[in-house]
Amino acid sequence: MCRWIAYSGSPIRLEELLYRPRYSLIDQSLHSRLGVETTNGDGFGVGWYTGNGGDEPALYRGTGPAWNDANLREIARSTQSPLFLAHIRASTGTAVQQTNCHPFRYANWLWVHNGSIREFHRLKRDLVLAVDPDLYPFMAGSTDSEVMFHLALTYGLRDRPVAAVERMAGLVESVGRAYGVPDPLQMTVATTDGDRTWCFRYSSEGRSRSLFYSTEISALRHLYPEQANLRGLSEETRLIVSEPLGELEGAWQPVPESSYGVIQKGDDELGRFEPAMP
Amino acid sequence: MCRWIAYSGSPIRLEELLYRPRYSLIDQSLHSRLGVETTNGDGFGVGWYTGNGGDEPALYRGTGPAWNDANLREIARSTQSPLFLAHIRASTGTAVQQTNCHPFRYANWLWVHNGSIREFHRLKRDLVLAVDPDLYPFMAGSTDSEVMFHLALTYGLRDRPVAAVERMAGLVESVGRAYGVPDPLQMTVATTDGDRTWCFRYSSEGRSRSLFYSTEISALRHLYPEQANLRGLSEETRLIVSEPLGELEGAWQPVPESSYGVIQKGDDELGRFEPAMP
Amino acid sequence: MCRWIAYSGSPIRLEELLYRPRYSLIDQSLHSRLGVETTNGDGFGVGWYTGNGGDEPALYRGTGPAWNDANLREIARSTQSPLFLAHIRASTGTAVQQTNCHPFRYANWLWVHNGSIREFHRLKRDLVLAVDPDLYPFMAGSTDSEVMFHLALTYGLRDRPVAAVERMAGLVESVGRAYGVPDPLQMTVATTDGDRTWCFRYSSEGRSRSLFYSTEISALRHLYPEQANLRGLSEETRLIVSEPLGELEGAWQPVPESSYGVIQKGDDELGRFEPAMP
Amino acid sequence: MCRWIAYSGSPIRLEELLYRPRYSLIDQSLHSRLGVETTNGDGFGVGWYTGNGGDEPALYRGTGPAWNDANLREIARSTQSPLFLAHIRASTGTAVQQTNCHPFRYANWLWVHNGSIREFHRLKRDLVLAVDPDLYPFMAGSTDSEVMFHLALTYGLRDRPVAAVERMAGLVESVGRAYGVPDPLQMTVATTDGDRTWCFRYSSEGRSRSLFYSTEISALRHLYPEQANLRGLSEETRLIVSEPLGELEGAWQPVPESSYGVIQKGDDELGRFEPAMP
Repeated sequence: MCRWIAYSGSPIRLEELLYRPRYSLIDQSLHSRLGVETTNGDGFGVGWYTGNGGDEPALYRGTGPAWNDANLREIARSTQSPLFLAHIRASTGTAVQQTNCHPFRYANWLWVHNGSIREFHRLKRDLVLAVDPDLYPFMAGSTDSEVMFHLALTYGLRDRPVAAVERMAGLVESVGRAYGVPDPLQMTVATTDGDRTWCFRYSSEGRSRSLFYSTEISALRHLYPEQANLRGLSEETRLIVSEPLGELEGAWQPVPESSYGVIQKGDDELGRFEPAMP
Repeated sequence: MCRWIAYSGSPIRLEELLYRPRYSLIDQSLHSRLGVETTNGDGFGVGWYTGNGGDEPALYRGTGPAWNDANLREIARSTQSPLFLAHIRASTGTAVQQTNCHPFRYANWLWVHNGSIREFHRLKRDLVLAVDPDLYPFMAGSTDSEVMFHLALTYGLRDRPVAAVERMAGLVESVGRAYGVPDPLQMTVATTDGDRTWCFRYSSEGRSRSLFYSTEISALRHLYPEQANLRGLSEETRLIVSEPLGELEGAWQPVPESSYGVIQKGDDELGRFEPAMP
Repeated sequence: MCRWIAYSGSPIRLEELLYRPRYSLIDQSLHSRLGVETTNGDGFGVGWYTGNGGDEPALYRGTGPAWNDANLREIARSTQSPLFLAHIRASTGTAVQQTNCHPFRYANWLWVHNGSIREFHRLKRDLVLAVDPDLYPFMAGSTDSEVMFHLALTYGLRDRPVAAVERMAGLVESVGRAYGVPDPLQMTVATTDGDRTWCFRYSSEGRSRSLFYSTEISALRHLYPEQANLRGLSEETRLIVSEPLGELEGAWQPVPESSYGVIQKGDDELGRFEPAMP
Repeated sequence: MCRWIAYSGSPIRLEELLYRPRYSLIDQSLHSRLGVETTNGDGFGVGWYTGNGGDEPALYRGTGPAWNDANLREIARSTQSPLFLAHIRASTGTAVQQTNCHPFRYANWLWVHNGSIREFHRLKRDLVLAVDPDLYPFMAGSTDSEVMFHLALTYGLRDRPVAAVERMAGLVESVGRAYGVPDPLQMTVATTDGDRTWCFRYSSEGRSRSLFYSTEISALRHLYPEQANLRGLSEETRLIVSEPLGELEGAWQPVPESSYGVIQKGDDELGRFEPAMP
């Protein structure tokens, strides 16, 4: 499987979250504690916005392990961003290549996924056929994750994100049933338009991969009391992570099963996720 | 575009053809003389058989330039084969990744292609839909070349190779017409089952990329009079190449426009290639 | 050999110079017009400062060709800098690996080089022994270029840059003489501390690789009249390049043989370069 | 650290040992059971002889993890060898690049190492200076392992291998003492000339990395009773491994602390390893 992190809030250097915490994403690439696979060394990626909501975010994606990538270290040190997604990959069978590395991007949107579509090689053709033909040429890789993204785009991600992802999930489960594949979908997902960030935790079998959020910025501040640059983070700063970056009691809340969350200005949202027929 | 070479005959070390000739394939990766692009540095590959016709051939494919690949040099030095295809790539837009490097393989078959399907991003979906759903999961990359291979397999490559490739070409031209894409197909192709090798030279516009064959082994012997290991090559040894490996007068014959050739035990064949509706 | 570019002036997005000009550095990686090698596909690198002179610059270096590197495109699009060096490499024999890609960095200094030390494999040991033992551990690769940089650092690059590079050149020529290697040094070099930039053009034989500078910002503005973002460039903006990025009459001046230049606030300098015994 | 395997005996396809066993080397790259590091994903390599003792062996080395390398799988499937070394790397700080991947080669010799020289960056210069100047140009990477190999070559590896490695170890400990580095050497090493194979287990502190050998071919046969191709292995077939490839009782014997072994025709040798001043 994979591990990911989504950050939203006061501009921060990427390295503060990718490298510095005790159980940072880079550390998880070598030995994840909660993942299905302990090693996530089949590529990685980070996508970041430079500050203006409507801009196309920048991507840096590599096919080697994140832990030994010298360029990632440079970029993480020299880049500040108010909103970014990062991902480390453990392939479930598809090729290790840049076009299979998350985040995936479409215009100003980014998408990261942990999990899989069971027996994807059998279901793939039917799923790909359901992608809007105008979006079809934008799929460059071979992963289930990228197909899920383009299905969500097909079903209106840009207008009604939660409903679009619910329809994507509904389609996957419907096609899975048609092919006799039990419990076909397993996912934690984050997607963002550069302004708001949506996260999803769902699996057909009701036992989803782990997902946590930092309810209050105070959690982060407690995590790194010695880091002056974290003291200035706004109250709306939030993190969503596959697994906690540290062990501070109370800092991390699990996202409930079959739920979605929205990180946004003002009150965040948390709601029930229910797959729907497209 | 790309450059490729197909060898069939007495077992030979790969380096004899990949590195030693004056205008070897490796030399062509840096500066091709007849190619549309002078540099072919977007990946490469070689597929070779170990001697028994029915075996699945081995592949070595890389995403960097062939000219600086230390492993290719090692493999070419240590590997002997009676039949191999090698390819250097100049991307026409799709990603530089191993799954886009030629040769493509299916069971005991290999396929290399130079050329392109014009406006492939627009035609791709319709072409992919025509691939046999049972073959669909075997497409791992994003190139036009791989789709062409799987269309040919769909249309019976394993039983009637020439007819199958003609139907593939017919489909591409038909879909091209439907989308208003003029002269959609440009190709030189080699494909082999480990026993016989078929080559094709065709383009919708009737101005195909260059393709040559060595009519007699004497040509090769003249090319390398000093190389004792070439003296023992059988009379049936043949080379098909995107561009001649040397300048010996009379050693290389162009494959005519809209033609196919078959390299096999006994007499070789040369015939007219005519796209057909699938 | 290689090609490089040094920019100093008003903050600019890297892509404006790496990708947009007609004969941009990326274009030169595929087909250089003035280089000894037409293809520079053995790696690349860019080093940039974020605006404060004393900061350690960031590096992005890759081992594939610059022209097909998707990450370089992203970084060039999303990064602004008032001072950066970029380099494309054509190996003269040493391995294609990140630690051999320019720019080389030491603290706040960067270094790029085009050229070579003749028969470097024979001279290397003596040259490396002359590097300050405290600097020795900072050499991570195997190129002549990196040894030249650390020799210059050994001889006082940080205090008296021109004299230090002259002593480095003197040592190379002295060791060359000792080993009977004629005309051992060929170089164009740029080095910077993030504030000033020094460039050098020299070769033992007196026929150095090409090097040009843009005397006035008006040259750049003429090059890109349609680009609004160039109109605001300060009068002190300067470019030094291995070969001109365009064909505008009068825009590019050759750096004379055996010369150095200094790009700095106030008047630039141009002087005679004379190797000196260390 | 790293993990390695040395095979000597009846010709065998590499994949039989690299992929098939339960705790194969490829499996160890993802999760080693006995290694200091559980993940060995910083490159890998295999060097094999084609059957004639005096030949230069072939190398295939990659910088990504072994577990997801498609080419390694192809080579392992298509290559037979009577003698090969394979290695998976966990960097102790030096760059992840092909020239740092084991095996290292010099003429017909190969060398693999697990362990490290403590504070190598401080000791490196003195150690490198002790390498024969004629051998100096053959060092292409930056690892302690490669320097150890060239020191052993300097001290007569080709003539008296055990004594040469003992002198290398003596030098490392002597230089370590001079710099105040306690217990500087930690190593298990295999080296071969294509005919005999020497292995070493030693550490200055007397607590060396694990190393095992298969005393009798019957062990292998028990490991893979279902594999017909193993039944024909000669009685002299031997394996030396960083950690056992399976759990068969009695199949694997630890190499004792401070020992060396020689795998050769006729009786193998086992002796005491004692560092000596060069």
